[in-house]
Amino acid sequence: PMGSPSFLERAQALLRVRNQLARECLAELLAVFVLIVSGACRRAGAGRGAVGALGVLGAPLARGYSRSPRTLCSQPRSLAGAHLNPAFSLAMCLLEQFPWWKFPIFMAVQTFGAFISSAAVYAVHYDAIWHYSNGTLTTSGPRETASIFATYPADYVSITNGFVDQVIGTAVLIVGLLAIMDTRNKAVPKGLEPVVVALLVLSIEVSMGSNCGCPMNPARDFGPRLFTYVAGWGAEVFSRGNGWWWVPVVAPLLGSVVGFAVYQLFVALHHPPEDGAPRAEQNSLVFVGTALTEMSPGEKDAAGILPQKK
Amino acid sequence: PMGSPSFLERAQALLRVRNQLARECLAELLAVFVLIVSGACRRAGAGRGAVGALGVLGAPLARGYSRSPRTLCSQPRSLAGAHLNPAFSLAMCLLEQFPWWKFPIFMAVQTFGAFISSAAVYAVHYDAIWHYSNGTLTTSGPRETASIFATYPADYVSITNGFVDQVIGTAVLIVGLLAIMDTRNKAVPKGLEPVVVALLVLSIEVSMGSNCGCPMNPARDFGPRLFTYVAGWGAEVFSRGNGWWWVPVVAPLLGSVVGFAVYQLFVALHHPPEDGAPRAEQNSLVFVGTALTEMSPGEKDAAGILPQKK
Amino acid sequence: PMGSPSFLERAQALLRVRNQLARECLAELLAVFVLIVSGACRRAGAGRGAVGALGVLGAPLARGYSRSPRTLCSQPRSLAGAHLNPAFSLAMCLLEQFPWWKFPIFMAVQTFGAFISSAAVYAVHYDAIWHYSNGTLTTSGPRETASIFATYPADYVSITNGFVDQVIGTAVLIVGLLAIMDTRNKAVPKGLEPVVVALLVLSIEVSMGSNCGCPMNPARDFGPRLFTYVAGWGAEVFSRGNGWWWVPVVAPLLGSVVGFAVYQLFVALHHPPEDGAPRAEQNSLVFVGTALTEMSPGEKDAAGILPQKK
Amino acid sequence: PMGSPSFLERAQALLRVRNQLARECLAELLAVFVLIVSGACRRAGAGRGAVGALGVLGAPLARGYSRSPRTLCSQPRSLAGAHLNPAFSLAMCLLEQFPWWKFPIFMAVQTFGAFISSAAVYAVHYDAIWHYSNGTLTTSGPRETASIFATYPADYVSITNGFVDQVIGTAVLIVGLLAIMDTRNKAVPKGLEPVVVALLVLSIEVSMGSNCGCPMNPARDFGPRLFTYVAGWGAEVFSRGNGWWWVPVVAPLLGSVVGFAVYQLFVALHHPPEDGAPRAEQNSLVFVGTALTEMSPGEKDAAGILPQKK
Repeated sequence: PMGSPSFLERAQALLRVRNQLARECLAELLAVFVLIVSGACRRAGAGRGAVGALGVLGAPLARGYSRSPRTLCSQPRSLAGAHLNPAFSLAMCLLEQFPWWKFPIFMAVQTFGAFISSAAVYAVHYDAIWHYSNGTLTTSGPRETASIFATYPADYVSITNGFVDQVIGTAVLIVGLLAIMDTRNKAVPKGLEPVVVALLVLSIEVSMGSNCGCPMNPARDFGPRLFTYVAGWGAEVFSRGNGWWWVPVVAPLLGSVVGFAVYQLFVALHHPPEDGAPRAEQNSLVFVGTALTEMSPGEKDAAGILPQKK
Repeated sequence: PMGSPSFLERAQALLRVRNQLARECLAELLAVFVLIVSGACRRAGAGRGAVGALGVLGAPLARGYSRSPRTLCSQPRSLAGAHLNPAFSLAMCLLEQFPWWKFPIFMAVQTFGAFISSAAVYAVHYDAIWHYSNGTLTTSGPRETASIFATYPADYVSITNGFVDQVIGTAVLIVGLLAIMDTRNKAVPKGLEPVVVALLVLSIEVSMGSNCGCPMNPARDFGPRLFTYVAGWGAEVFSRGNGWWWVPVVAPLLGSVVGFAVYQLFVALHHPPEDGAPRAEQNSLVFVGTALTEMSPGEKDAAGILPQKK
Repeated sequence: PMGSPSFLERAQALLRVRNQLARECLAELLAVFVLIVSGACRRAGAGRGAVGALGVLGAPLARGYSRSPRTLCSQPRSLAGAHLNPAFSLAMCLLEQFPWWKFPIFMAVQTFGAFISSAAVYAVHYDAIWHYSNGTLTTSGPRETASIFATYPADYVSITNGFVDQVIGTAVLIVGLLAIMDTRNKAVPKGLEPVVVALLVLSIEVSMGSNCGCPMNPARDFGPRLFTYVAGWGAEVFSRGNGWWWVPVVAPLLGSVVGFAVYQLFVALHHPPEDGAPRAEQNSLVFVGTALTEMSPGEKDAAGILPQKK
Repeated sequence: PMGSPSFLERAQALLRVRNQLARECLAELLAVFVLIVSGACRRAGAGRGAVGALGVLGAPLARGYSRSPRTLCSQPRSLAGAHLNPAFSLAMCLLEQFPWWKFPIFMAVQTFGAFISSAAVYAVHYDAIWHYSNGTLTTSGPRETASIFATYPADYVSITNGFVDQVIGTAVLIVGLLAIMDTRNKAVPKGLEPVVVALLVLSIEVSMGSNCGCPMNPARDFGPRLFTYVAGWGAEVFSRGNGWWWVPVVAPLLGSVVGFAVYQLFVALHHPPEDGAPRAEQNSLVFVGTALTEMSPGEKDAAGILPQKK
């Protein structure tokens, strides 16, 4: 509205990044950051009997809800494709809606975003974590704090069961997302996708979180785990749960393929051919991305996932 | 967007099912599957004092919310009529909106879908169920796990009271659904129906769940019960609660008829005749179907339904 | 869609009520019934330590949510004005949007609807109430069940404080409703009013429920109280809390007047005059009505209102 | 609809305020009042073991939800700019969307609104507060009631950590708000902004509330703190937590600047220049304002923020 170039206009002239991929990666990074920082839980502060447990309970609820706003900052109209989750990026590649060559780049950016978000979460909860952990950052035991960042299976859950859990969980998620994105499927009005996706993710997490917290997102799980390794929790973050760490990396990707195949076989392939209509709505990808971002594993205590404190 | 036939186009050419009824049944099956797997609760993992109870509490909330996304995969625009619940299919028949001859077919598909979903739920929670049940799958007692799958009445609830509960509960649900579907009733905007329906179902379940978990869906209750019978819980799944099993099959169907009659007598019959307007909106049936799918009975513990563990 | 008159068409020819007021009252009655039955809580079943308390906690949440669907059955397009709450009807009269002569009629219908709903709630929870109350229906003491139906103040709340509570609570509610209904106030899109109203009511109830359960609805409180008097709880339903019963009848009506005046003085009177625009949107009244229907008082335990059981 | 001037028309002729700034301030005042009164928690009533804790838990949920309705009364179409939070007003100034000279006026009105709302909350909960506090209004100790009104840090949280917490929390909030407001960012449909903003705020609060309740709003924290000082809690409301009171005043303003800068650097500056499109949508400011209003600090107990009672 102003005549002479304003401060913002001058800043834009100076700093504007014109490369499409770079802009996509910046937005993806910010989106993952907002997602994780706003969804991080306070395990340490929460471990106080009933009241603490209630705080933890609130977390998964809020996490589910907050799926919707998070995608916002990742999808200005002029930037394409915030996915937030490698499992979703993979499904987009299979759908022929996202180029295969961008897949590893996005996966790296998503994982890096999760890593630096973990640093911010650590900064915000620095006093609480050290207060709670009595001066030692541990990955197991009654005062462990590693599960604030990454997921660990419940004591009674085998690697096999955890793997099946993550394949089925992610497959169900991808079936739901593909249904929401399917333009021949007019069910969800334009702006409600993030809410619907958030409810879908919340539902799956609450239903399946008891085994291993239902990460369903390789980047969201591996980035923070790497951070805890670097920040002083030590190698146990990879060894605990019989080397559990690779399950939330591999199983969601396999689940994504399974979910894609099931939706094609049960629904999409049987659509009558339409007059050149696009196979799915580009714009709606924006919202769907939201759903794939996972909850902070520390929040998953509410589902009784991790070994309970005595 | 591609010129030469893509992988997906070739798959479609090969595998496409053109029969309308077959496509409807496939979509109904997938919808019931997604519904139940994403809504299944983790009773076993949850049975741990306050924290466990909190996990269970989360479940009904999520279940209520998740009504909305579930319908999505069942209703591509080109497939008509995912109902998810025989009680809803019956109301649609009474409304002269669904052919009577399809009613038994849908009821069978819905029940079969609930059966196979129970198998998936069992697979996902295999370790947890066996860990919790100490090696014996029982239908009653402090370590029972049958109520993860089907409903059982609280100890103090007679068959008569449970029957009345299910008739009134389903009737109120059907009144709400008919009001939402009524085109002469402009209250709910097009895309908000699933959310509104989910809130209605959640409200009824929370209000009435203490007696017997408020199944309100014959297929959702009988399919999983059959699965538990087959999978090793034994004949007690039919005998417990003085032969309770038939109540959630018969009462919701009767409740559907009652709800239909009440809505006609109190509201619909008194609408002034309009110029050939359709009696109800075909498209909105899609959303309504969502609401009729019921919660996993195991989740109902939160309402204090089943005999509590000491 | 059929040529020959269908069953429904013949039923309509036979039973159709053409009188506008009669149709409004029928719809109002059904709306109140659905509201109360779907929102009734199970206090009896809930009184079981932590798990019971959790069930009770769920209730107010669901109640808040379920505001939205409930209005649905009360507002077919051809029937005007389901209010569900005398306090709202009063505000409509003050706004010159509802005729004063209909006010007592609506108040009577709303109260009668609440009365018969209480009978249905009693029927559904018959076994649970008698099981919980050990064979005596009492209004006070550790096994009291009267607060399932009507509100009673916490022990430490005086009549004066309760009165102030209800005046302020209802005034805030009416301010919010008038803002939502104000057409010069484009904030809420057409179909979202019920959700927004539900969140407003939920917020007020959670915030202010600890004193006396925040009834904010004379009909919703007095109808069920009358039912408990008739059904065997005895005269204590009127005497308990130093004759508390008249506070939730009178204070919400006064609060309605206060809220109306505040909104006029702070906002509405200062609107620049517009070219003959209607003062508020007739159609949106439909949704607003929802909000005024109150929660089942038994549910209010979650807020710690009533004397706690030891 | 009437021919002769009605009561309301005559009142308007008499009382109408024509000054734009005065009308904005009246609306801002009423908005803050409704916000705080409907979001106030009942700490006193809630402090009763598990049941009390549950009541407290409900509060943050409702508070999050109720963001949406609250803005309603502050934004009649003809009144511009209810912000409810100085941190948001500051971001609007930085965005060149709000005049700098109005910033201190709005900050004063917001703080005054929070002050008088605290008086109303005190009136409503008068009996409960005195009953709970055993006759002495204290700011610390097992029966303290000051945290019903303003925030105090957990015992283990240093001023530095609390400051970082509030800067990061507010920055994430402002990033989300700017993304929602960005017109080049079509993600959120017109009417859904308040819901999306509410979910964002709820998510941040639940995630970060354990340190100091995550006020993120100088007016919302300082106004009630001043009230408690005046009303008899004494000077400890400023001294407790090593002079904590200035942190929720200064840190959110700094966080607002940080969030503004991050969103510009990561997203906004890289938008391709468009044909004279407005930089952000004036009307959508309305909704965004909602999010910035903060929760009642007393409600934050649920997150385990404040020293727990033994």
